[in-house]
Amino acid sequence: MIDLQALAGEVHADLDRASDRGTVATYIPELAKVNPSKFGIAIATLDGACFMAGDAEEAFSIQSISKVFALALALGKIGDGLWKRVGREPSGTAFNSIVQLEHEKGIPRNPFINAGAIVVADVILAGHRPREAIGEILRFVRVTADDDTVSIDPAVARSEQEHGYRNAALTNYMRAFGNIENPVELTLGVYFHQCAIEMSCVQLAQAGLFLANGGRDPRTCIPVVSKERARRINALMLTCGHYDGSGEFAFKVGIPGKSGVGGGILAVVPGKASIAVWSPGLNAQGNSLLGTRALEAIAQRMGWSIFGT
Amino acid sequence: MIDLQALAGEVHADLDRASDRGTVATYIPELAKVNPSKFGIAIATLDGACFMAGDAEEAFSIQSISKVFALALALGKIGDGLWKRVGREPSGTAFNSIVQLEHEKGIPRNPFINAGAIVVADVILAGHRPREAIGEILRFVRVTADDDTVSIDPAVARSEQEHGYRNAALTNYMRAFGNIENPVELTLGVYFHQCAIEMSCVQLAQAGLFLANGGRDPRTCIPVVSKERARRINALMLTCGHYDGSGEFAFKVGIPGKSGVGGGILAVVPGKASIAVWSPGLNAQGNSLLGTRALEAIAQRMGWSIFGT
Amino acid sequence: MIDLQALAGEVHADLDRASDRGTVATYIPELAKVNPSKFGIAIATLDGACFMAGDAEEAFSIQSISKVFALALALGKIGDGLWKRVGREPSGTAFNSIVQLEHEKGIPRNPFINAGAIVVADVILAGHRPREAIGEILRFVRVTADDDTVSIDPAVARSEQEHGYRNAALTNYMRAFGNIENPVELTLGVYFHQCAIEMSCVQLAQAGLFLANGGRDPRTCIPVVSKERARRINALMLTCGHYDGSGEFAFKVGIPGKSGVGGGILAVVPGKASIAVWSPGLNAQGNSLLGTRALEAIAQRMGWSIFGT
Amino acid sequence: MIDLQALAGEVHADLDRASDRGTVATYIPELAKVNPSKFGIAIATLDGACFMAGDAEEAFSIQSISKVFALALALGKIGDGLWKRVGREPSGTAFNSIVQLEHEKGIPRNPFINAGAIVVADVILAGHRPREAIGEILRFVRVTADDDTVSIDPAVARSEQEHGYRNAALTNYMRAFGNIENPVELTLGVYFHQCAIEMSCVQLAQAGLFLANGGRDPRTCIPVVSKERARRINALMLTCGHYDGSGEFAFKVGIPGKSGVGGGILAVVPGKASIAVWSPGLNAQGNSLLGTRALEAIAQRMGWSIFGT
Repeated sequence: MIDLQALAGEVHADLDRASDRGTVATYIPELAKVNPSKFGIAIATLDGACFMAGDAEEAFSIQSISKVFALALALGKIGDGLWKRVGREPSGTAFNSIVQLEHEKGIPRNPFINAGAIVVADVILAGHRPREAIGEILRFVRVTADDDTVSIDPAVARSEQEHGYRNAALTNYMRAFGNIENPVELTLGVYFHQCAIEMSCVQLAQAGLFLANGGRDPRTCIPVVSKERARRINALMLTCGHYDGSGEFAFKVGIPGKSGVGGGILAVVPGKASIAVWSPGLNAQGNSLLGTRALEAIAQRMGWSIFGT
Repeated sequence: MIDLQALAGEVHADLDRASDRGTVATYIPELAKVNPSKFGIAIATLDGACFMAGDAEEAFSIQSISKVFALALALGKIGDGLWKRVGREPSGTAFNSIVQLEHEKGIPRNPFINAGAIVVADVILAGHRPREAIGEILRFVRVTADDDTVSIDPAVARSEQEHGYRNAALTNYMRAFGNIENPVELTLGVYFHQCAIEMSCVQLAQAGLFLANGGRDPRTCIPVVSKERARRINALMLTCGHYDGSGEFAFKVGIPGKSGVGGGILAVVPGKASIAVWSPGLNAQGNSLLGTRALEAIAQRMGWSIFGT
Repeated sequence: MIDLQALAGEVHADLDRASDRGTVATYIPELAKVNPSKFGIAIATLDGACFMAGDAEEAFSIQSISKVFALALALGKIGDGLWKRVGREPSGTAFNSIVQLEHEKGIPRNPFINAGAIVVADVILAGHRPREAIGEILRFVRVTADDDTVSIDPAVARSEQEHGYRNAALTNYMRAFGNIENPVELTLGVYFHQCAIEMSCVQLAQAGLFLANGGRDPRTCIPVVSKERARRINALMLTCGHYDGSGEFAFKVGIPGKSGVGGGILAVVPGKASIAVWSPGLNAQGNSLLGTRALEAIAQRMGWSIFGT
Repeated sequence: MIDLQALAGEVHADLDRASDRGTVATYIPELAKVNPSKFGIAIATLDGACFMAGDAEEAFSIQSISKVFALALALGKIGDGLWKRVGREPSGTAFNSIVQLEHEKGIPRNPFINAGAIVVADVILAGHRPREAIGEILRFVRVTADDDTVSIDPAVARSEQEHGYRNAALTNYMRAFGNIENPVELTLGVYFHQCAIEMSCVQLAQAGLFLANGGRDPRTCIPVVSKERARRINALMLTCGHYDGSGEFAFKVGIPGKSGVGGGILAVVPGKASIAVWSPGLNAQGNSLLGTRALEAIAQRMGWSIFGT
C-alpha cells in the first residue's frame, strides 16, 4: 500500500523545482500580489486522515472553486428547476465568453463558467438580502470544511467589483433575456463575495469530502446532498470544471476537478478522497500549472483515475 | 449480488413499452429503412460472461462508434503526434459543425466529431491504399470483438458517399489548412467505409472490453493499447462521445460512451464491463433515445457510475 | 419637372392604404404606446423649400437617427482619432449583437450599431458632466434643424434606462477592453438621452440638409462639417445605416439613410435634398416598413438613387 | 474642366513611387509569378473616350471582378429568383469564410463573396454543359468589353482547381443544404474558369461602361441590363464589392467597385465613367493597395464620389 504522506511530499518536492510555474493572474491587483512560489497539497481520505505538503495550511482566494459549493446550495434550494436556467454541457469556450449567451438566448452552458455561476448566485439571492445570501454560502462552506474560521477577504471582493466589467456585461446581458431576477448589482455583489472566500488546501480538501462520499459528510454521516446529486456534481466538475481545458484535464488527470484563478484546484476521487492543491501560476487555459501536474502525478501513482487503473 | 441477466431483461422490457422512441436518422436512405422497433442490450463482463436482451444479436450500422476503434488504431500508428492534428476538448457544437474549424484553423476539437474522425482516417490511410486502410480497421474491430464475421455494408458506404456533402466540405476545408494529407476522396472513402461497419450489440460489447480492462483483451490478456491509453480513450468518450449531448450523458449516465447515428451506443465501465445498446430512434442531440435510458438504468441499478456509487 | 409636393402627397396616399404596416417596437413601454397609423413625409431641398405630407409636423422619438448627429459632433471633437475606437465596416449582424465585440476585442464595427454609438457618446462625454454632453448634442441638433424647440422626452430616456440591460452589457463589455473611458452609467445616460430626442419629419429633414450640401448649412452657408466628412458620413449611412438591412436598403432605395426604432428614417440625397419619413411599424430588420417604401418610391420617381438614374 | 488624361498620368506617376505596394497573392502559383511593379489605370467615359496610364493595356487575371459580369448574366437568366439563393447584405467577414453559411443554412450573404459567386455560377450552368456555361460568360464579357480577344488563361483555371480546397468546401457545404444544383466539380469548373478570365484595364473599363450608363452599352445604346438592375448591381458593388473592406472603400473612395485578388479593381461612376486599375500588391483585406489609392485620388480630384462633391 502506498504511503499517501510520502507521496504528497515527493510530488511536492519534485514539482517545486520547476522553473516554469505559469503566470499569476493579474486582472485584479489583489491576486497579482500573491507570492508565485507558494505551493501546497492536501489529501483528505474518507477515513478522516489528511496528508499535506508545502503551503497546505495557508489560505488563498478560492475564486471559481466556490462555484461547486454554490451549485450544491442552489440545487438544495430549487432542485432540478435550476436546469431551466443553466445548461449542463461543456462550453468549448473561455470562462468569460459572451458569444454563447447570444446564440443561446441568455442561458449559460453550465454552472461553472462565469455566466452560469452568476445565475446560481442569483438563485441563492432570491428572497434574501445580499448579506444573507453571502452568509448562507459562507456557512455552507464552513460546515462542509468543518471549520468556522473560513472567511471572505473584503479587499478581494471590492477589487472584483471595481474591475468586474466583463461579469457586469454577462449579468446585464442575461437580465435582458430575463435570466437574472434580482438587480444586477446585488447578484454581482453575492457572486464577487463568494469568489473572495479564502481557504487553505487543508480546509478545501475537507470541504470536498462529501462529494467523494456519496453526498454525506464522512465525519457525521449526515447527507449534505443526495447520492445522485453528488454524482452529478462530480460529472459536471469533470466535463466543465476547467473551462476550455476541461477535456485536457479529464484526459491527463482523469478525476473530477474545479479550478480557480487564484491557483487552487479541488479534485474529487469518488469513494476514496478529496484533494486540494494550490500554486498561483496558471497555464494558458487559466488553471494552476503546478496544481494540475501534482494532481496528474497523484492520480497516476494512486491509480485513482475514474477511467481505469 | 444483482443478477445481470435479469437486469438486462427488466430494463429492456420496461423501456420497450415506451411510445416515444425518438426519430430514426434519415440523412441516408439505408439508415432510414431500419425498423424503429428494434431494441437490443448486451453486457459483457471482464470474467467472460455476456448477458443480452432483445435484438442483441442482430447486426446494425455502428456509424460513429467506429471512431473509438479508429482512434485506438491511429494512436497505435503515430502515438501522441496525433494530438498535433486533433484536439481533446469537447466542442460544444453539433457533430458536423464547420464553424469551429474556421476559428481554429483546420484543427478539429476532438477525434469524435466528424472532422476529427476524418483526420484519424487520414492518419490510418497514410502510406496505404484505401482498401488496405479499410481492411486494417476492419481487422482491428474483428480482433477486439473476437469475431471474424464482422463486416462492412457496401450499400451503406455507397449511400454515405452519395450524400456526404457535408463531410466532403469538412475534409476539403481541413485540406485547405494542410490538415488532410491524402486526396480528399480517398480519405473520405476510408471514413465512409469505417462508418458502414455492421455489428450486433453482442459483438460490440465484446469489442469494447479491452477499454474496460486497462487496455488488455480479457480473453487473452494481450494488450491492445497501453493502460494509460485505455484510460485516455475512456476520458475522451466521456467528455466528447455524444457531441453536444456529452455533458448530459455524463450527468445522467455517468460512464464513458460513444454513440452512433444508427442508434447504437458503446459504453465502458472501467474495471467491470462493456455495454452495447441499440435502438434506432434518436433524441434531439442525435443519440439513441432508448439506448441512453437503458444505460442510465443499468448504471444506476449496478452503481456503475464512475462519479460515485 | 416633377412637382415634389404632389409627389409627397401621392406617395403618402398610396402607401397609407397598406394593411401591413409592420410591428411597433415594444421593448420600452413609451414606444409601444405610439399610434401605429401615424405616417409623415417631409422633403427639404437645398433651395430652402420643404414639402410635406401626412403627420410631417408631429414630433416622434428619433432614437438611432440621433447617431448621425452624435457622430458628426464626435468627429468635430477628436477627428479621425475616433476610428481607433470604432470601425467603419457593416456588421452583418443585428443592432444589439455582442458577438462581434468579443471577436474584435471591444472595438465596435461601426458608429451606427448600438455599441459604436455608445463609444461615440463616450467621446462626447469626455471631460464634461453628462448634463453638459447631452446639452451639446441637443444644441447641435437644434442648430442643424434651425429650430430651438427640439427637445428630449425625459420619460423615454428614463424608460430606456430602466430597460437598457443589453446596452449596459455592451458598455460594460467595452469598458472591460478599455474602450469606454467614463463610468458606464454616465456614458449610458448620455446615450439614452440622445436617443430620446423628439423631432418631427420637418425638423429632421431640415437637420439633415448639411449632409446633402457638402457639409454646409444651406441657409447660412456656414460649414457644419467639412466636405469630405459629409461625404464620409453619407457613405457610413449607406453601408451601415440600417443594421443587417443596410444592403437591402442600398439595393432597393439607393440613397444614404439612417433609421430609428421609433419608425423614423432620415435619408440624404447628395446635392439635392434631405428626406425624413415616419411610420412606427417596423419590418423584420427593425426599420420602418412604410418609411422604407416611401423612400423607395420617392427615389425611384425622382431618379435620386446615387447608383444611377 | 479637368484633363482626365493628365489626371490619370499624374495619379499613376505619383503612386508609382510608393515603396509599400502591398503583398502579391500567393495562394496559387500562377498569381504569385506576376511582376509586383505592374501598375495600370484606364478611365472610359460615356462619350467614348478612354484615358490610360502605365500598364493599362496589359492583360491580367481579373479573378473576382468576373463576379460582376456573372451576376448580370445570372440575373438575366432567372431574374429576382436568384435572391432566394443568395442574399444582398454585406457579410462583415472574409471572402472565403464558411461560418456565415452554417448560421444561415447554406444561403451566402451576397453574390460577391466566393460562396455567393459559386451559386451564381451554378445558376449559369443549369441545363448546360460546363464548356457552354463558360463560353456564355466569356461571350458576355467580350460583348460588354467590345473586344473579342478577351480570353481565359487555362493555366490559372487549372491552378485554381488544384488549390481550390476552400472553394470545394464551400460548394460541398451549400450542396448539403440543397443550394447547389449541379455536381460540385462541374459548378466549381465554371467558377474557376470564370475567375481565370484575363483582361487589360482598358478592356475592363470598357466592359464596365454599361453599369455607368443605366444598363445600356453607350456605344450601341442597346440595353445590357435594365436601368433598375444596373443601379442594383452598383449598389451591391458598393456595399459588398471589397469583402470586409467594403465599408472602408465606400468611406474613402465613395464609388461602387469590385476588386479581384489579381490586383484589379473595376469602379463605376454612375452617369459618368467606368474606371479600371491594376496593381498586383494587395492590402490586408485582399484588395489592390495602389489600385485603391488611385481610385481614391481620381474620385477626389474629379468630385466623382456618389456621396457628394
